[in-house]
Amino acid sequence: MNINYTDYENEDFEQPDKPYDECGVFGVYSNGGDDEKIVDYCHSALYSLQHRGQDSCGIVVNDSGVFEYHKGLGVIADAFKQSDLERLSRFSDGKIALAHVRYSPKGQRIPHNTQPLVARHIKGPMSISFNGSLINSAELRAEYEMKGGIFHSTSDVEVIAYAITEGRLTESTIQQALEKAMYKLKGAYSMAIMSAKKLIAVRDPYGFRPLCIGSLPNDKGWVVASESCALNSIGASFVRDVLPGEIVVIKNGVITSITTHCNTVPSRLCIFEYIYTARPDSVIEGASVHGARLRAGMYLAKEHPVEADIVIGVPDSGLDAALGYSRESGIPYGIGFIKNRYIERTFIKPTQVDRANSVKIKLNPLVESIKDKRVVVVDDSIVRGTTTNIIIELLRTAGAREVHVRISSPPFIHPCYFGTDITDRSTLIACLMSIDDICRSINADSLGYLSLESVSKLAPEAKCGFCDGCFSGEYPVDVPDELPQNKFDKKFTENIQLTIN
Amino acid sequence: MNINYTDYENEDFEQPDKPYDECGVFGVYSNGGDDEKIVDYCHSALYSLQHRGQDSCGIVVNDSGVFEYHKGLGVIADAFKQSDLERLSRFSDGKIALAHVRYSPKGQRIPHNTQPLVARHIKGPMSISFNGSLINSAELRAEYEMKGGIFHSTSDVEVIAYAITEGRLTESTIQQALEKAMYKLKGAYSMAIMSAKKLIAVRDPYGFRPLCIGSLPNDKGWVVASESCALNSIGASFVRDVLPGEIVVIKNGVITSITTHCNTVPSRLCIFEYIYTARPDSVIEGASVHGARLRAGMYLAKEHPVEADIVIGVPDSGLDAALGYSRESGIPYGIGFIKNRYIERTFIKPTQVDRANSVKIKLNPLVESIKDKRVVVVDDSIVRGTTTNIIIELLRTAGAREVHVRISSPPFIHPCYFGTDITDRSTLIACLMSIDDICRSINADSLGYLSLESVSKLAPEAKCGFCDGCFSGEYPVDVPDELPQNKFDKKFTENIQLTIN
Amino acid sequence: MNINYTDYENEDFEQPDKPYDECGVFGVYSNGGDDEKIVDYCHSALYSLQHRGQDSCGIVVNDSGVFEYHKGLGVIADAFKQSDLERLSRFSDGKIALAHVRYSPKGQRIPHNTQPLVARHIKGPMSISFNGSLINSAELRAEYEMKGGIFHSTSDVEVIAYAITEGRLTESTIQQALEKAMYKLKGAYSMAIMSAKKLIAVRDPYGFRPLCIGSLPNDKGWVVASESCALNSIGASFVRDVLPGEIVVIKNGVITSITTHCNTVPSRLCIFEYIYTARPDSVIEGASVHGARLRAGMYLAKEHPVEADIVIGVPDSGLDAALGYSRESGIPYGIGFIKNRYIERTFIKPTQVDRANSVKIKLNPLVESIKDKRVVVVDDSIVRGTTTNIIIELLRTAGAREVHVRISSPPFIHPCYFGTDITDRSTLIACLMSIDDICRSINADSLGYLSLESVSKLAPEAKCGFCDGCFSGEYPVDVPDELPQNKFDKKFTENIQLTIN
Amino acid sequence: MNINYTDYENEDFEQPDKPYDECGVFGVYSNGGDDEKIVDYCHSALYSLQHRGQDSCGIVVNDSGVFEYHKGLGVIADAFKQSDLERLSRFSDGKIALAHVRYSPKGQRIPHNTQPLVARHIKGPMSISFNGSLINSAELRAEYEMKGGIFHSTSDVEVIAYAITEGRLTESTIQQALEKAMYKLKGAYSMAIMSAKKLIAVRDPYGFRPLCIGSLPNDKGWVVASESCALNSIGASFVRDVLPGEIVVIKNGVITSITTHCNTVPSRLCIFEYIYTARPDSVIEGASVHGARLRAGMYLAKEHPVEADIVIGVPDSGLDAALGYSRESGIPYGIGFIKNRYIERTFIKPTQVDRANSVKIKLNPLVESIKDKRVVVVDDSIVRGTTTNIIIELLRTAGAREVHVRISSPPFIHPCYFGTDITDRSTLIACLMSIDDICRSINADSLGYLSLESVSKLAPEAKCGFCDGCFSGEYPVDVPDELPQNKFDKKFTENIQLTIN
Repeated sequence: MNINYTDYENEDFEQPDKPYDECGVFGVYSNGGDDEKIVDYCHSALYSLQHRGQDSCGIVVNDSGVFEYHKGLGVIADAFKQSDLERLSRFSDGKIALAHVRYSPKGQRIPHNTQPLVARHIKGPMSISFNGSLINSAELRAEYEMKGGIFHSTSDVEVIAYAITEGRLTESTIQQALEKAMYKLKGAYSMAIMSAKKLIAVRDPYGFRPLCIGSLPNDKGWVVASESCALNSIGASFVRDVLPGEIVVIKNGVITSITTHCNTVPSRLCIFEYIYTARPDSVIEGASVHGARLRAGMYLAKEHPVEADIVIGVPDSGLDAALGYSRESGIPYGIGFIKNRYIERTFIKPTQVDRANSVKIKLNPLVESIKDKRVVVVDDSIVRGTTTNIIIELLRTAGAREVHVRISSPPFIHPCYFGTDITDRSTLIACLMSIDDICRSINADSLGYLSLESVSKLAPEAKCGFCDGCFSGEYPVDVPDELPQNKFDKKFTENIQLTIN
Repeated sequence: MNINYTDYENEDFEQPDKPYDECGVFGVYSNGGDDEKIVDYCHSALYSLQHRGQDSCGIVVNDSGVFEYHKGLGVIADAFKQSDLERLSRFSDGKIALAHVRYSPKGQRIPHNTQPLVARHIKGPMSISFNGSLINSAELRAEYEMKGGIFHSTSDVEVIAYAITEGRLTESTIQQALEKAMYKLKGAYSMAIMSAKKLIAVRDPYGFRPLCIGSLPNDKGWVVASESCALNSIGASFVRDVLPGEIVVIKNGVITSITTHCNTVPSRLCIFEYIYTARPDSVIEGASVHGARLRAGMYLAKEHPVEADIVIGVPDSGLDAALGYSRESGIPYGIGFIKNRYIERTFIKPTQVDRANSVKIKLNPLVESIKDKRVVVVDDSIVRGTTTNIIIELLRTAGAREVHVRISSPPFIHPCYFGTDITDRSTLIACLMSIDDICRSINADSLGYLSLESVSKLAPEAKCGFCDGCFSGEYPVDVPDELPQNKFDKKFTENIQLTIN
Repeated sequence: MNINYTDYENEDFEQPDKPYDECGVFGVYSNGGDDEKIVDYCHSALYSLQHRGQDSCGIVVNDSGVFEYHKGLGVIADAFKQSDLERLSRFSDGKIALAHVRYSPKGQRIPHNTQPLVARHIKGPMSISFNGSLINSAELRAEYEMKGGIFHSTSDVEVIAYAITEGRLTESTIQQALEKAMYKLKGAYSMAIMSAKKLIAVRDPYGFRPLCIGSLPNDKGWVVASESCALNSIGASFVRDVLPGEIVVIKNGVITSITTHCNTVPSRLCIFEYIYTARPDSVIEGASVHGARLRAGMYLAKEHPVEADIVIGVPDSGLDAALGYSRESGIPYGIGFIKNRYIERTFIKPTQVDRANSVKIKLNPLVESIKDKRVVVVDDSIVRGTTTNIIIELLRTAGAREVHVRISSPPFIHPCYFGTDITDRSTLIACLMSIDDICRSINADSLGYLSLESVSKLAPEAKCGFCDGCFSGEYPVDVPDELPQNKFDKKFTENIQLTIN
Repeated sequence: MNINYTDYENEDFEQPDKPYDECGVFGVYSNGGDDEKIVDYCHSALYSLQHRGQDSCGIVVNDSGVFEYHKGLGVIADAFKQSDLERLSRFSDGKIALAHVRYSPKGQRIPHNTQPLVARHIKGPMSISFNGSLINSAELRAEYEMKGGIFHSTSDVEVIAYAITEGRLTESTIQQALEKAMYKLKGAYSMAIMSAKKLIAVRDPYGFRPLCIGSLPNDKGWVVASESCALNSIGASFVRDVLPGEIVVIKNGVITSITTHCNTVPSRLCIFEYIYTARPDSVIEGASVHGARLRAGMYLAKEHPVEADIVIGVPDSGLDAALGYSRESGIPYGIGFIKNRYIERTFIKPTQVDRANSVKIKLNPLVESIKDKRVVVVDDSIVRGTTTNIIIELLRTAGAREVHVRISSPPFIHPCYFGTDITDRSTLIACLMSIDDICRSINADSLGYLSLESVSKLAPEAKCGFCDGCFSGEYPVDVPDELPQNKFDKKFTENIQLTIN
């Protein structure tokens, strides 16, 4: 079959499109019908989910089946003006709304991939806020295109919209259409879906990505969110996680559930949510993210002990594990770096300043904590090694006598097919050299990664199984031979071009 | 059939969506491959077509089948920054590009209806820049939705994209797919279409809307545009009009033509293009628009002579006919109003200033020309009558002894189904009262409209027939019983909602 | 004395600062105290004065002596958002406000020169909206700087503010301070000045620049404006011109006048206001601008008759004189060019398009009017000759058999010291060659300029004398030996730098 | 004397102007002349000083005495676009530049107070980047105004510019002018000053505000900055603090010093710089800010011990002291709150969300750390008490058994005259009630403030004395009877208005 996805409309052609992304999902169903509040809920929740995606964001409101939206590139503070929120409030009947923050691979900050997706159809309008990645999206997309479908975006969520719409043609409700579509969708998906009158939440049968249900203050309605920290920000209380495979339907203020797809396969929550993705104050499947990271640090201390004077974390994601390492080892915890609080959003990289200086603007070592000390520095992962190298150099310049690097996860050596953006294995340092060589390469005095065995014990309270495929290479489903993005390679596409009209 | 087009996502709910609009279309095929120039051509051409639509605009470029675009709300000067043009130039291989300016009914300035439409498909990408209106779009849309299609916009152009895509599934080229689709499309359409390697221009068999072909300076390629004035602005020379029903295909620098749909019906160019829509310096079907308006003024002078001291036009669209009236009648031509040149774009209406003052900011009478004179004032049409009333009041205040109003078209009393936005007949003064009553209502000393008979003689050089349905009520095709927008009425939609899931 | 005005903070260093500029002045004093209306008046008036300056603009409001302002670069539509107007309304007590549009020489679109100027002082706040040019500003500036003054801008208005402030230290009212300052100020100035409780209007004793007084509808207050067209736009009625040398003081709703400086010298209104600067619908010193231009065309026809088929004007400023030429000569008036209405504001010049194409985007010849005709084309002036050359080329390409150029003013061959921006005589074609050579250079069949004698008869109704120094070289006051801007030359400045600390 | 500072052009009239502010100062002198780098240095340094002011910022560059600037409201990321940096680079000769971040009291985010100030003068241009507050600015301002000076801003820096300019009229160099001016300036000032050829750094004789000197990498030049963290961000090395009273002059790449004003009074660095203002990674007068805060926590633990299970800090400013408390007390340190990283910049406050919810969006308690624990929570200060109240409520809701509040500074009970913005004592909870009452009011189980005695021992390495006037009421100089802003009270001003012309 001639596949011609000329979809990599990226900024610089460095990197082809990838059909997976990491995102934050939010939906709200209010019994009260308070127009302004529902938009405020979405807006506040997006701030709490912003760490899951800073590339684009959007809110869709509903007025008796008429959908109005605002979406924009960049973080919420850049994409939403006061007038945008006011306009959405005017167009909302105050009952149902969806919101989304999107992470997109480099070069994919393009308007047509912003979410929530809004689709119009004779069976009623539908909006989808999606987090995950399908492994069979290319096949499904080809199938729907060969039936006459047209795609505006390059995102998996449009494939899912087609699958649900296909179901609506024969089924009598949108939830039945979704139930039917799930037989076709292979991979990771956690979604909030809005129809004219319903808010629906769904997770794939493996439960790769988190999704939880909360109740609004004073029982005024329901919310669904990727992480529980989004509930806290709006004063909602945590009710429970959506089950793997479950379809939760909220209509007329009442929650019902379709469980056909539940327990069809063992659950496999992405373990990387605990290690890096989620916010420490979130609780996923009953386990605290902060607790898991503390534990990661404690296991690290057991597996890779060292004599040292101070334990520091690389802010912000290394702080929890550093505290765990300190507690287990008895080595005092210290504040080793000050992170600039003002560059989370747009930072115009100076033209003349190299990568090392770019790191220096973000992180400044605290000489007081480091000078003449043997330092244990804890981070969550090493990607290319370049940044770690600079961090060690900063510590040595600040007077550290020894620098011992501890990583609160195993080496990343396998691709992820379910939504974590590991773009190119050839740039992953752990795929290229041994741990000893990495240690020398980053100029550390010692280097220790968390063991795979300990990873499995990070969240003992969790009521689910885990996917650790990126560390172990063992995936819960058959995965393609090659990384999905390869088929979007420009050279490949150009060859295909020659054969089409 | 349950139809549920919840599509009137308008600003103020005053007015439902209308499936027709007036727009400007442009496409360019360069043999040279000069990256920057092709974007400059589009940009300059849009300035020349801006009078056809000020609500949104866009440019799509092509790099060996990879499409990149920039679209925005408002006029070109607001929607395109220098950096947008530079970015498009970087993403273009300099060969093919499309551009569009869009007029949208009140409340429809929404991002998802901006054009050119860009659709991705396994058979290759496609972009469409469209001007016109289908009369069977609702039926076609329902058909494609019932086959599983999803609509992102509320515009007819997405229906057309589905029809062409349907053809591509079985035909071997996009032009054959288009040829096939044209059997289904009923109504007015003039389009430029871009595929990975081709620029295609097409007009419906009636040729309701204009579209012409030009050649770039030094035979460096081809352009298609709604009006010939866009060719002048980029130094291109006029070659010929696209024939009604013709599909013009430009590939590898060579023009070929599919004429299957030509001469299947008598041609019916919209006569209102000569009266109001087109720019006076454009030549359509061989007839100068300025010439047609001069002629309208001359006929008016014959049909509605009056003793007067000066003939003035309401700027800008009444000036040509006023000159014609002056020439025919021998009454001196004068400049009667100064139009503020700085409010064509955004004008923030003062909160405390009423409609009369709003007109005063735009138009100021030239006392020197008017004082103590018997004035003939020529305009192209009267809509609600309110503005004409204010204009007459301004003339009287400026000292006019008599004010004789002459309108260079017949009264608007029938709906248009082919792209001219007559929103609501109940607000059209000519539907509500007799010409004598209008004359009294606007406080004119006399009022004369151009006769239907003269309208038919406005462009004697034109090689085509005309549609004057909005004046005569006679349409070239069977039209629906009611105005198409009625089916988008909110109340209707809400009733439907109750029956759907 | 070492003068070191390092003030030419221009965009491109091509052109040094010039201490004169052409601007639009507006002030309003309302008895009513309607907060929003006063801002609306300013906003509407600026639209009507926009032709006097498109580089920056501003509005200053007054709340019992507390001044708040908004200023911005570019035209009003770009510089003022709805929220800016609302904010100003909130900060206004609805009584007094000033507004300004500014023309600035190339490269001087810098924030610190925007007006109205707002100065804080122990004697009370003061704001000034200024049009004109001082010939002794450098001397005065040096004087005030040597007394310890600091300058933030490079504009003459700051010099004037110092002169008035100097007067306030000894005089008991601001109008007396102004009266005293006027003995020091040499040159052209028409100003509206706002103190905590007064609106003051003043013209220099020669009355170089226009300034008139109007009364608000229903006698609700007073306005002053550079041109009467600004009164029309807000429904105000023309009362009278401010007299040359007069200080008009509006306080507690009552107008009083200080005439000490009146009739001390013969009045000398800039004749170029009638020829080019003012809007045709304005009446200055009792003479209609449109009337003066009609007359200019008629004199041209008498002085430079020619056999031709049509007379056309270069839009917009050549249209009135073309009509006059037509009337006097009997040659039919025609519409020769369509001017693009959408490029008055920001037009991003295409990078690859040369000057000729840039003109083509703005002006398109109307072939219908021109083809096979002997054309008389009327314009108000020729600067470099380049544009005229392109215009003639366009006419010839459009089929004109002959092109006869008529200019409704004499050749520009002397510098202006009073506010008209003639930047560099070496680029003025009339300073470089004879009229015959210009005619050949622009490829015209004939060329005729209006005679100096006729210029003096353009506005016979005017109650004042005229300055025609730019044509005649005769100035009402002693002017410096060299153009004032020379002292801002960068090389000069750099030499000076060496001597300063 | 009639004083009429109508200067409180604030957003909401709640709060009058205050002539002091907290700011960040930066200047660079490069020997190299690398155009782009000097702007990058400024830009990066501003990011590192952003915590000292988020209300406006600016950069001024110098091209052989021609100054060009860009200033804007808000944080750097909002105020500077890439094109602004590029433009500044074009206008710089790469040698000298100044930069500034500004904190302004509520309602004072107004363009005319942005810094660096740029003043033009016959003795050469001057730009000033200022941090501090004069106590005699009103008197000096009146003095200069009575000599004919005009003020555009309401900032002390314009008063200082007048004082220096006064000196330039008689002295032969700008540094001598500054030396002379310092005899008149009373209060706190740390400044970087740029003339055509020099970079000058100066601190007032008390040295209230910090200012340090660094050397660019590879000895390519010099920088001055409010804090040493700004040096780190650009790879510069710390050289030394500017001495209290010292004038440091950098010209032709050489540093010289004027010490006339040194050691004339005992040094009095603001102790609040260590407690709150400065970044923990800065070193001021030889003492680490982080070290001082650790020590504050340790003293707190000694002065206010308590039995507890965990010590947490309120992010970010309470973290260091919490760690110190933990180390001294032996109670484990924990992460108690997750602070949202995306709201440092603009956060549109939801209309319907109360203050409690607003805090919830910023801070979320980490239940895992807190539940069933006796919690010590450390913060740097209590202002109104409202936020502390909410924080305690959050901790209790998260399951804390006991909440013990420890504040790492003494109660704020006296006004600051030297640059710390304590707006209104009537809103300071410590001025209104006893510590016991505060404890009850915020619903804490216990409350302890750091003692004044311990404050004096926070930075034992520091080579200077301290000002703790806000805690002790003892100031190094005679201070006015009332807070300076009172004289800007609107009612006062209005009365004055009546007496002026």
